Formats: sequence, structure tokens, C-alpha cells
Amino acid sequence: MSHNSFGHLFRFTTWGESHGLALGCVVDGCPPNLAISEAEIQSYLDKRKPGQSKFTTQRREADAVKVLSGVLPQEDGTFLTTGMPISMMIENTDQRSKDYSDIAKRYRPGHADFTYDAKYGIRDYRGGGRSSARETAARVAAGAIARKVIDGVTIKAGLVQMGPHKIDRERVDWETVNDNPFFCPDPIMAKEWEAYLDGIRKAGSSVGAVIEVVASGVPAGWGAPIYAKLDQDLASAMMSINAVKGVEIGNGFEAAAITGEENADEIRMGDDGKPVFLSNKSGGVLGGISSGQDVVVRFAVKPTSSILTPRQSIDSDGQEVDVMTKGRHDPCVGIRAVPIGEAMMACVLADHMLRHRGQNG
Amino acid sequence: MSHNSFGHLFRFTTWGESHGLALGCVVDGCPPNLAISEAEIQSYLDKRKPGQSKFTTQRREADAVKVLSGVLPQEDGTFLTTGMPISMMIENTDQRSKDYSDIAKRYRPGHADFTYDAKYGIRDYRGGGRSSARETAARVAAGAIARKVIDGVTIKAGLVQMGPHKIDRERVDWETVNDNPFFCPDPIMAKEWEAYLDGIRKAGSSVGAVIEVVASGVPAGWGAPIYAKLDQDLASAMMSINAVKGVEIGNGFEAAAITGEENADEIRMGDDGKPVFLSNKSGGVLGGISSGQDVVVRFAVKPTSSILTPRQSIDSDGQEVDVMTKGRHDPCVGIRAVPIGEAMMACVLADHMLRHRGQNG
Amino acid sequence: MSHNSFGHLFRFTTWGESHGLALGCVVDGCPPNLAISEAEIQSYLDKRKPGQSKFTTQRREADAVKVLSGVLPQEDGTFLTTGMPISMMIENTDQRSKDYSDIAKRYRPGHADFTYDAKYGIRDYRGGGRSSARETAARVAAGAIARKVIDGVTIKAGLVQMGPHKIDRERVDWETVNDNPFFCPDPIMAKEWEAYLDGIRKAGSSVGAVIEVVASGVPAGWGAPIYAKLDQDLASAMMSINAVKGVEIGNGFEAAAITGEENADEIRMGDDGKPVFLSNKSGGVLGGISSGQDVVVRFAVKPTSSILTPRQSIDSDGQEVDVMTKGRHDPCVGIRAVPIGEAMMACVLADHMLRHRGQNG
Amino acid sequence: MSHNSFGHLFRFTTWGESHGLALGCVVDGCPPNLAISEAEIQSYLDKRKPGQSKFTTQRREADAVKVLSGVLPQEDGTFLTTGMPISMMIENTDQRSKDYSDIAKRYRPGHADFTYDAKYGIRDYRGGGRSSARETAARVAAGAIARKVIDGVTIKAGLVQMGPHKIDRERVDWETVNDNPFFCPDPIMAKEWEAYLDGIRKAGSSVGAVIEVVASGVPAGWGAPIYAKLDQDLASAMMSINAVKGVEIGNGFEAAAITGEENADEIRMGDDGKPVFLSNKSGGVLGGISSGQDVVVRFAVKPTSSILTPRQSIDSDGQEVDVMTKGRHDPCVGIRAVPIGEAMMACVLADHMLRHRGQNG
Repeated sequence: MSHNSFGHLFRFTTWGESHGLALGCVVDGCPPNLAISEAEIQSYLDKRKPGQSKFTTQRREADAVKVLSGVLPQEDGTFLTTGMPISMMIENTDQRSKDYSDIAKRYRPGHADFTYDAKYGIRDYRGGGRSSARETAARVAAGAIARKVIDGVTIKAGLVQMGPHKIDRERVDWETVNDNPFFCPDPIMAKEWEAYLDGIRKAGSSVGAVIEVVASGVPAGWGAPIYAKLDQDLASAMMSINAVKGVEIGNGFEAAAITGEENADEIRMGDDGKPVFLSNKSGGVLGGISSGQDVVVRFAVKPTSSILTPRQSIDSDGQEVDVMTKGRHDPCVGIRAVPIGEAMMACVLADHMLRHRGQNG
Repeated sequence: MSHNSFGHLFRFTTWGESHGLALGCVVDGCPPNLAISEAEIQSYLDKRKPGQSKFTTQRREADAVKVLSGVLPQEDGTFLTTGMPISMMIENTDQRSKDYSDIAKRYRPGHADFTYDAKYGIRDYRGGGRSSARETAARVAAGAIARKVIDGVTIKAGLVQMGPHKIDRERVDWETVNDNPFFCPDPIMAKEWEAYLDGIRKAGSSVGAVIEVVASGVPAGWGAPIYAKLDQDLASAMMSINAVKGVEIGNGFEAAAITGEENADEIRMGDDGKPVFLSNKSGGVLGGISSGQDVVVRFAVKPTSSILTPRQSIDSDGQEVDVMTKGRHDPCVGIRAVPIGEAMMACVLADHMLRHRGQNG
Repeated sequence: MSHNSFGHLFRFTTWGESHGLALGCVVDGCPPNLAISEAEIQSYLDKRKPGQSKFTTQRREADAVKVLSGVLPQEDGTFLTTGMPISMMIENTDQRSKDYSDIAKRYRPGHADFTYDAKYGIRDYRGGGRSSARETAARVAAGAIARKVIDGVTIKAGLVQMGPHKIDRERVDWETVNDNPFFCPDPIMAKEWEAYLDGIRKAGSSVGAVIEVVASGVPAGWGAPIYAKLDQDLASAMMSINAVKGVEIGNGFEAAAITGEENADEIRMGDDGKPVFLSNKSGGVLGGISSGQDVVVRFAVKPTSSILTPRQSIDSDGQEVDVMTKGRHDPCVGIRAVPIGEAMMACVLADHMLRHRGQNG
Repeated sequence: MSHNSFGHLFRFTTWGESHGLALGCVVDGCPPNLAISEAEIQSYLDKRKPGQSKFTTQRREADAVKVLSGVLPQEDGTFLTTGMPISMMIENTDQRSKDYSDIAKRYRPGHADFTYDAKYGIRDYRGGGRSSARETAARVAAGAIARKVIDGVTIKAGLVQMGPHKIDRERVDWETVNDNPFFCPDPIMAKEWEAYLDGIRKAGSSVGAVIEVVASGVPAGWGAPIYAKLDQDLASAMMSINAVKGVEIGNGFEAAAITGEENADEIRMGDDGKPVFLSNKSGGVLGGISSGQDVVVRFAVKPTSSILTPRQSIDSDGQEVDVMTKGRHDPCVGIRAVPIGEAMMACVLADHMLRHRGQNG
């Protein structure tokens, strides 16, 4: 058991605070002889990195990852994994802790300030300390390793809702997700969001979002019954991301509103001897085990709690105060949650691939 | 790691198939010297028990629980826990496995038949075997023990949506949840559902539902950051229940649609020196740690997959077939999910209470 | 984490007290499609069963095992495992709890009476409750399943020392271990022990022993570095058995007394392309990973603490008392530790086989 | 589950190879508000550090520890723990990997070279890679944190046997362990060892040792029954240290040779209302739970496998070769195992203190 580890056979442990010296993770259980490079890991981190458009926090972090162990350097500068723990570190370079001195004692509404103090009696208030979304850089690094484990599986993700504005499923083209600053698979909606979010940003406000993550190429049989369901572990993974308030698999909450006839994914026999499902209401998981269809997860991210409008709160002395957060923040933190959701999907799948192989050969 | 265990310090392991000799669980880590009785555990099982109204399966199971270990019998017939593993067993008495002989080789759409075969190459088809919701009786028994651990916390739950019909929040009266066969806290909606579900049942159809579970009296400080968030473990717990497709905390998916100003739970100082939150959008969890507010979780249950209308499918020989399920089933399996959701809430909270005490004294 | 579970991928949880209704275990993670029968499991339990000679406790327990879940019955009465948790139960039939009423409040020296009370503030004193060696029946049942997992590995075990009397390694014939009541592989020493232990028994005394367990056919590569070493897990497994005070691998403590030259297991190339080790000082484990040689473990069991000679102690009220234990006990509890040691060896190997397969395919 | 983590509530994960960039550990679950400093952690590392006398390897490593997370710096340069994961790193500075180029393909007898290759199909041969005792620096750092958790417990350790030479228990004076290069508590024997080991060293040979670790001030009640016994976890902890071949608790293997009367630790009532044990054969653990007496563990370390005398072996191509190890090594690696044994004792106790508090308050 560990409060800062995720997974079982493919397992990672993260550490580090927003304004400490560094942050990182240790990935344990990775199979040996997988080829990987720092550049490849970096490419995923760059996708999550702050300061890439006016729609994400202006904190300037190189987020340069260093692989410290668990690999054998090859002559071309790439690595082979050795099966040993892979330690990765990212040094913090652009902390501006003094931005936070105002709120050292103040509990920002919607933040973990009050609860950390209530639990631990001490709190690293600089940039949110451990509760900062900065921790998610370590997840993305772990996810880069996980992707190597589940070779053959492809993962795509994007924003499917920003504030009240949902994408039009008819217009979805996943090829376009990197063509806009929102990872939005609906190019027309992406345009509309641009104006919308600019308004939110200028008002010092923030807004929530829904992210969809889809894994293709997952064979039937990953996951496990009862308390190690694939969808259960995906729910756990996504809910562990900062600011996430809801998770759904396949048709999710919509399933509550329809009948058994409408919800049934009928099956026919494919020419290749594999079953062909006529729909994917289940989101690729039946009884906790993958069916061979796309694994589809969505999660809701709340609006960034750090806003410029003052909100009523208290401080650690019990005084009533008004809190306004001046630091550098994302108007829609959901945007940067996209590569994080992908990483968590990869990690859950890698873990279940190894677990499946362990029990079933 | 275990595929059939849940929790860490308060941990239970379940076993048993729908049509085997018995099912049960072993609860490990329970604190000593808690007073409990078989009658009390039974009372929770009775709430989940099938055959209590025409709206739940007509399988007749006494679901009589026997406590086999971990307790010291007292003179009045009650027990004191000893800190040792508590083994509880429920014998199956009304299996009618022959009802299932038709489908021994057929993959029922929406069921785990295909995926279990794909994973294990063998499957106990009798009544769904291990994938049957019958396993949840063991959870309810474990939950009864968990409630003793979190003395002072009260848990209530009910159906807040059946098919497309949502309750009216203005009319909610939690005192009335046991006055109708749906655990519905809106007495007027409960009446409407009665007619609605009767139609569904007579048509051999089924319908989904949304369940809300609320825990009051949870002190600030339970849960843990990053990968042991209280809301993460609740999401995992609820998603592990059969047929669940989505989970949300507090305002959940609604949070995606609103702004930071709207989403902030402002705080004032209470007369008792404790913070008073002016709203509970967060669902009682901030940064993965309880805030002292009500912990609020909702989960979506899909419609029962066993329906009388034939659906297209295949069998284990790869033949295309039509499947119609004749066994005894619930038209809205969400109803019986209510006591299960309560039990899982209790188990998550008990685990986190002990974990918090371990680290923080 | 669990106080009453052992293993990770092949994992079992035991429950039950000496004088409760029953005891048992739940084996989780077993691969599917393994053939097993209750008779086979019973055969291992019979080897551990009390009352088989005058040298083991006269408590008469049938120790009849019932498999409650996780298997699909075949037409010939045998089972196939399904990959689901295997619950096994043994009912207690010959408890004589009143034998223990004298010592309900007295702390027997060498027993766990005082420490259980100190830890839990409550204690099931009947027959030692959970701390009784009766729990080991559940391990033996789990071990029977584990042996199926590690098909191709053979495990033998025997007493190599009783009191001060060690076997002569020159005379060892493992074929003879079942020809004497001590599982002694040295037939001449077995004869000597017979007279020796009879004297101990008649004196109401007891004596310690050393058990050796050897697994042949373990391929190179099981185990894992650092904190999941094969020898580490074997040490943990054996030390978890009641009354065990020491564990050693290969030449064990002897290694401390010799030089690097003497200790080196030199290697030559075998005709079959596999390495041939010229000695086995290492006990088949190098760097925590199996080398392909026999895995050799020894553990020391202390003399049964229950003896007829009064010993000074205190009771739970803090009064000084003299304690003499009248129940039915083994003059050398090490004898019955032999099948338990075999079972734990099987469980550790099964777990590591699955773990190896998980990470390395 | 994790191959490179140890403990449950107080849990650490280590990473790093002998000749990589760095090594380190992440300590998770540490209680908040404990005062610690880098200097204090360093003091334990210095005790383990190589190159301190002619009797340990001449590799020159500063072993300077850096605390990267989980603490809040105080004005005086010390830290307070925050309850967050504590990441500690030690950079490697004196790797001479070319010393090892000869043996890149050769399997050194007694080393893990062959088994790592057999398991992973790849191996970091530089300085033994992950199987090097260099990993133990990370344990010592974790142990420094653990000592803070078990405030009030004191841990002492020393060499009680080197090669065939055992200390004389009559002459033991624990105050003198730091007065000789062997951590030997018998000053006269320490002198004899000096000449003895110098001979071994000059001959390019090596020798084994036995280390004793004693924890005083452990209250009654730590540990847990059955599979989380305090002595079981100590056995696991010590056996996980490189080169350890045997572990014993209290009188250990001696218990096998004596009778129940001789082995009983009789109990009288102390003036302070606490039990007074008249002997400590049990080593402070009864039924897996601490009794309040000193917790006493001994472990046997084999002679360093790297010796100058050529030994027969094979290489990874299956060729027969003679192997002589030229790198810098310890003639008695058991010496440096002393601070490592202390660290592991501290970590086991810290974990069980938190686990006890979790379940029993």
C-alpha cells in the first residue's frame, strides 16, 4: 500500500512538490529489453508542458526529463530497459514562491489547502505543494514507458466539452486534435472555444471540461473480475487526476436513461473469426474485462479554482478572509488534462497486460 | 495485489459463484472490541435480498449469513471483534442451474460471458458464475462490519434517477427512502416509477438508474493525496459494482459546464470554531481529502442485460445465434445497488479512517 | 496489505481460530484450467493432521476440506480451476474448549497470550485462538493448489535435526521420509529419535527441530531483485510458521564461517547447453533469483511451549502464577511443520512463477 | 506489489545501479511534523560509506544525500516532514566502469550475473548494476527517516562473528562498537579480527560474518499475527540484504536443540506494573507480536564473492572460463552490513508502529 503509487505489476511512485527542487517518479515492474529514449519521453511531457498557448499557465518550465536508472544506454544514445526500476526526474526551474506568500495561511476555496492542514497539521503552501497539478508531469513520464509495454495499442484523447459547449459527434476527426490548442477533435467547435475561452481568460475566470480517452487495439481479456475490473482501475486512474469530479465508461451516465434493448451491443461473427460488435455502448469492457473493442473513458474536470474574483474563505487562524488567487494559472485546466488522461490510460493497460500474462500465460 | 480483495487496512476478500455451494468474504484488519451481531449484519443483507417486491428477481434466497471467525461470542449471543479475520458465509439455496443450460455456450450481449471465456478459456456459466451480482451479498456483509469501524458516520442512499426519470431535488425527503420499493427519496417520483417500471417488467425489458450515496459525519482529514484520494477510492469502489458505467463526486459532470466562480464552495467560520461551507459542489472532498462536509457520490447503473427480447450474438463455437435470457432477473438492477453502494461507501471510509490513524495518529 | 494474506499474484488469505466453527482460506490468482480434486488436497492435509502417531497431539480432527468456489466440477468428480478465488473450509469437530478454561487469564510462557492481549485488549483463549498452529491446515490446503501451478517442480522435506540430534548427511535417503513418523530422511537417526522423543513425551516435556525443504525443477529466473528476492520470500514464508525462530538458505549460517574460495559454486557447461554447478552452497538462489539448482531452505522450530512442568508467569490481572499446560500437544511440533514447510515453499514458488511470467512473458 | 519497495504504511522504493548517474529512494507514508536534517541522514550514510578503513572497498564515494521532496525547510536549515513522499538521491561519482569490461559477458560465481541474464535477457554488468550492494545506501537513508518515526526506540548492531571467530558474550560492551573498524562489541575479539582480516585481505580472499541487531524500547503490541509477524518481516528485511544467507530471532537455531523447559522465558511482575521476563530466548517476539523485551535479530552474510583466486565459470556465450574479479571490494562485506541491518530494523519497526496504530488506535 502506498499513497503515492499507482498500479501493481506496472507500478509507479511519484514524488515532488510544485516549488521544490524537483519532481519525478520511479516506474517499477517494466519488462526488460524495451527500446526507449529520453526524447520520446520528452515528447509526451512537451504536450503537457505549461506556457504553450495563452490558454495555459504562463509558468515557464522546460520540464526536461532525466532518466536516472533502469536502462542500459545504447551506442545511438537510446536506452534498453533492464527490468529494474526506472527513475525519472524533472527539475523545477521557474518557481516563484513569493507569489504565494499572501496565501500561506489562507485556504483558497476549491483547493486542498484546508484539507491538507486538517489532515497533516503542516502544509507546503508554495504553489500548492504536493497538491499542485505539477505532479502530473511525473504521470506523463510514466505513461511514456507504459506505452512501450502495450505495443500495438494506440491511445487518442481530446476535449469533448468545454464549459457548456459540447462537440458535435458528427464532425469528429481525431486527426485534427493537435491542430488546435485544446486537443479538440471537432475543428469547428475548436474555433468557437477559442473566442469563448479568451473571454473567460480575460475575465480572470475559469471553466470546466470533459476529456475523452480512447484506446484501440486492446485485445479481449485484459482486466479482471470483481475488484480489479479494467473499468474500475480506469475510474480510479482518472479520478486521481487533479480536479476530476466524474468518470464514465462507454455510454456512462447515458446508460441509466435507456432500456436493456437499447443498451445491448449485439455481436456478429467477423470474417477473421473474431466477434464484431455492432455498437460500443459498453466502452470496450464487459464484466471488468476488455472485449477487444475500443476502450472509451470520459472524465469531467472542474474549473480551475484559482480565479481573480475574490471568494469568501477563512485562514488557518480561523479568521474570515476574502481570497483572490494571483499566481499563474490555466483558465481551463482540462486542456492540459488530455495528455495526462492518455498517460493514465497507458499505465492502467500496461498493468493489466502484465497481470493478465501473469495469471493466464 | 489481489483480484478479489478491496481496501488496504480495512480489507475484504470475496469468493463464490452464483450457483456454487456458497459465497462469502473474509474481512481483515477490523479493529478489536467492536460489538456486532449476526442479526445486525443480516439486516443489511435483507435490504439487498432478492425477491422482496415484484421489481426484483424472484430468486428466493434466504441470504442467511454465518460468522465463522474473528469474533468472541458474548453471553447475550452478540459478538466482540478480536482483530482477527472475520469470515462470513452465505449458503446458496435456490440455484436453478438448469435455467442456464441453454446459454452455456451462448454469449449474452452485455454480459461478461464472452470476455470471461476470452480471458480464462473456461467459465462457470451457471447463473453467470462469479460475474453474477450475487457476489455483492458479500460486500454488504463486509459493509456491515465497516459501519462499526466508522461509528459516528451515517450513510444514506437512494435512487435519484430511473431510466429518463429524475427525482425533483425540491421534494427530497431521505426519511422516506424505505417507504417505497425503490429507495427513492422523492415520494412523488416513487409513485410514478411504480407504474413506469411495471411496464418495463411486463415487457420483459429493463432500465438503468442513478444511485446517490451520502455519508454524513465524516471528519476533515480522511483520504490521502495523489493515488489514494478518497474520491478516487470511492470511484473505484462504485465502479467495481456490477453494471456500473459512471461515477461522480459532488456536482460531478456538472462541474465541467460551469465557471470557477460558480463552482467555488465559499467558507465562513462557524460558531463552533469549525469552518462552514456555504455550498457543497465538491461533494465533501478537496484534494482527495475529506473536508468535513457530506461526502456525496453518484453512480450510473446500466439496464439489466438479461431481457426477453432476442438479441443477436455468437456462441463459443463462433456460430451466430439469437439470445433471449429466461432466468429470473431484475427489471432495474439499480434498485438493489442501493444497499451495495452504501456498503462500499462504508468500506472505503473505514479503510481511510484506519489509514489516516496509521499515518497521523 | 493484509495481516492474514500471503503472496501477491498467487495469494491466499486464511481465517479461523482453533476452537471456532471452522477455519479455511481463500486462494486468489490461481491460473484457470488446472485439474485438481478434493481427494488430492486432502492427501496433503492428512500428512499434517494431528493424532497420527503418539508423537503428535491426540486431538482428533478429520480435517476434511471442502472446496466452496473457484472450480467447475467435472463429470468424474474432479475439478477444473476457473481463475476465480478458491475458497476452502475445514470444520472444527474436536474442540475441547473447557481444557483451556484454567488458562483463560493466564499468560502461558512462550505463547502469544500476553502479546495478543497487549495488542488487541481481547483474546480468544480457547485453544490459542488464532495463534494456534491449527491455522496451518489452511496453508497446506493452499499449498496443494500451488503445487498444480508449478507443475514440474517437486518438493521434498524432512526433519534434519531433533533436539541436539542431527541427521548424518551420508545416510540421507529422501525415499524413506514417509517410512517413519518424523519425516526423517536418515533411517538410522529416525530409529534413535523414536526412543529419544518417547522419553521427552513421557516427561511431559518438548523439544525443537530443524526442517529442510528442497524444491527440484525450479527453472532459472524465478524471484526478483532487491525486495522480492526468492530467498527473502522463502524466509518470510517459513518465519511466518508458528514457533519458527530461524531460517537459512543453502549453506546458511555456515557461510559466515568460510572464505570466498570455499563458498564459490563453480560452474561448468553441461552437455544440454545448461550450466552445471559443481556445488550448491547458494541453495539455488543468486541475487534473489533462482539459478536452476535445487532450492534449499532450512528452518528451526522451537520446542512446544505447552509443557507439563510448571513455569512462572503472570495473569491478565497482573498476578504472579505458575502455569502448566494440560491440553493435547505435540512433544515436537517440528514434525508437523514438515508438510507446512512444503506448502509454503509451493506457495512462494507459485507466486514467483506468475510474477516472473507477468514481467518477462 | 513492487519488486523494489519495502514496507506497507512506512514504505520505501529504491532505484539505481552501481555505475549509473545516481541512486536513491522514495519514502512514502512518513508521518508529518517530524524534524530531520540532511546532516542527520548523512551521518548514517557515512557509517556505511566505503573506503573508511583498509577493510572496506577503496571505491571513493561521498555518498552525499540530497532530500528532494516531502519536507518543508525551516529557517535553521533543518526540515519538517509534511507527510508527502520523501525523495532522496545520492549521485554516483567514482564509478570506474572499465574495471568491469572484462566481465561483461562472464558470470562471476556467487554473483547474480547468471541469474539476471537468465531472468531478463539483459543485464547492466557495470559494477554489478542493480545487484550491487550500492543499493543499500538508499536503505540507510530510508532508515534514517524511520528512526524519527519510532522515537524512543534505540537500535544497536555489531558483528558477532567473523569467519569462524565468534565474540565472547561475557566481554560484550556495546559502547565500544564504534571504537573498531568492525562494529564489534567485544573489544578483545576486535583486535584479533584485525590481524585475521588483514591476512584475508592480503590473500585477495574474503570471509563471511554474523551481524546482530538489537532494538530496545519497542513497546508490547507491534507486529501482527500470521502473515505480518514482526519476526517474519524482520526475516524478510534482513534476507533482502545482499549476501545474507540466514536470519534468526532470539535464540534462533539454538531453540531447535533444547527443551521446552529450557526455552521458556518465565515472567514475573515488575514494580512498575509491567511484566518482567526472566530471559529473552524469544528475542522479544511472541506469536509475531513484540513483548516489550529487546527485539534481537541475527543474520549471516556470506563471504564477498569477488575474490582474486580464479574460479571456474561460464560466459553468456556458453564458453567455459576462469573468473577472477579485479574491481575494488570488501574482504568482509559483513562489516558494512551493520548500518544496513540497523536501517532495516528501523524500517520494519516504523512500518509496524503505523500499522498497529491504524488498526488499534
